[in-house]
Amino acid sequence: MAADNLIDGRAIADQIHTDTAQRVASLKSCGVQPGLMFVRVGEDPASKVYVGMKERTSARLGIHSETLVLDAETTQSHLLGLLRELNADRRFHGILVQAPLPKHISEQIVYSTVSPDKDIDGFHPVNVGKLMLGAKDGFRPCTPAGVHELLIRSEVTTTGAEVVILGRGNIVGKPMAAILCQKDQHADATVTICHSRSKQTAEHCRQADIIVAAMGVAEFLKADMVKPGAVVIDVGVNRVADSSAKNGYRLVGDVDFANVQPIAGKITPNPGGVGPMTIAILMQNTVTAAERAAR
Amino acid sequence: MAADNLIDGRAIADQIHTDTAQRVASLKSCGVQPGLMFVRVGEDPASKVYVGMKERTSARLGIHSETLVLDAETTQSHLLGLLRELNADRRFHGILVQAPLPKHISEQIVYSTVSPDKDIDGFHPVNVGKLMLGAKDGFRPCTPAGVHELLIRSEVTTTGAEVVILGRGNIVGKPMAAILCQKDQHADATVTICHSRSKQTAEHCRQADIIVAAMGVAEFLKADMVKPGAVVIDVGVNRVADSSAKNGYRLVGDVDFANVQPIAGKITPNPGGVGPMTIAILMQNTVTAAERAAR
Repeated sequence: MAADNLIDGRAIADQIHTDTAQRVASLKSCGVQPGLMFVRVGEDPASKVYVGMKERTSARLGIHSETLVLDAETTQSHLLGLLRELNADRRFHGILVQAPLPKHISEQIVYSTVSPDKDIDGFHPVNVGKLMLGAKDGFRPCTPAGVHELLIRSEVTTTGAEVVILGRGNIVGKPMAAILCQKDQHADATVTICHSRSKQTAEHCRQADIIVAAMGVAEFLKADMVKPGAVVIDVGVNRVADSSAKNGYRLVGDVDFANVQPIAGKITPNPGGVGPMTIAILMQNTVTAAERAAR
Repeated sequence: MAADNLIDGRAIADQIHTDTAQRVASLKSCGVQPGLMFVRVGEDPASKVYVGMKERTSARLGIHSETLVLDAETTQSHLLGLLRELNADRRFHGILVQAPLPKHISEQIVYSTVSPDKDIDGFHPVNVGKLMLGAKDGFRPCTPAGVHELLIRSEVTTTGAEVVILGRGNIVGKPMAAILCQKDQHADATVTICHSRSKQTAEHCRQADIIVAAMGVAEFLKADMVKPGAVVIDVGVNRVADSSAKNGYRLVGDVDFANVQPIAGKITPNPGGVGPMTIAILMQNTVTAAERAAR
């Protein structure tokens, strides 16, 4: 199959950005300036890159953003105090604490301290619970919600489809399963969750109409595990040593793309697939938070 | 196979009750009387039966309980006001609002109004979210937690097991999947969630080591859908017309017990399987709530 089976995540993300920018303009015409606060602790290089990308996208869409940079020795209680102040600060409709955090800080406690109304990452237990219950008034975590939008806008039928999710993490695998098994339009799939302790992962994958790979294992999904015509979504971002690269490594997905792409019905490239969608949903969630606050 | 493959839910529930009664005694020796408030709205006959059973079990274990009976015309806002008072009432560590509620009252709003700390049913979004995130400081919903205990105390290995959950309801199916797919001892299963829109339910069931039937369809699981030796847990309670019964109906599970029992490795009878476990976990959750409040 030619490369016309690629799902263009950048193009779909841009469709969403266009819609988000219009919603920002509407809010501004009513005197509301959507605001987003990034909190970064320490100098993790990847975190700097990610926050930088989100800052630039915010600016492009007309969302005001600021970044609070704390040093790596910041105590947890100091961070929690700052978050409580930000929860009360009406200029910011969304608060994003960039992971990873230093080891002496509990991500779970931090995520539970951000107000659920400003939790545009969808990590607060209230929002996780609402997702699982099928309630529509929470925030969905950005990556699985982004994958869901990719499927919808690529006209992939999920109703009655056999879906295999590779990975059971809190950020992708589990919420992805919760989204796709719901009794809902664009969901209603039969979902199997496979993970490191699963014994028949290959057999499950071979039966699947849709595979979402979020295991965190470089090129885990091989061509002989994929049914011809299946839809393959690659969420993985893995570092693989590469002496020819200037950093000494290259980034590789969870899918053996070169061999899977020819047999897949549709497939996301990586990069250029899921990544741009994560940011698109983050911006969408921020505007939703601003709209709710304005009501 | 003889009937020695039965999982005796009453006996296992009694083991838990013994432990719970000891915890109640410990609390009382420290001056804490565990208290549980039941709220019943209207005169639904099944609700009266269920609340009655729970009242008697509370009394047997030394838990103080009271039942607030409201008439079917009670407004939602009146009920929410009462729940807020009960949230602040330190005599009651657990609050249970018996379903079903009259149609003019939203169960979701009611469940979100009970304090998460007193939500011994495990229905509040915070507790649902904590369950999904694998946090241990919430309350697990009683029926799926009861099934989990049945599996553990029947020495059924879940690690790496193929599990099929029939049904994706908020009370059983979804939380059951969340419990069994966790990265945890007594979990770590490969979980497939099938439901009314699934197309290959029989095929999935035939591969399963463990099947949890919570579909709400009388005798849905037939013998030809079960792998010999599989563990079968029947959560269903369905009314089937029966002119020979004095009420005109009999209660039937989701499993065709007569034909599945001979080939199953282990199987729950129904009644006498999951039902008693639901109450056992409810009482356990109540005592846990009292212990946390006492700290």
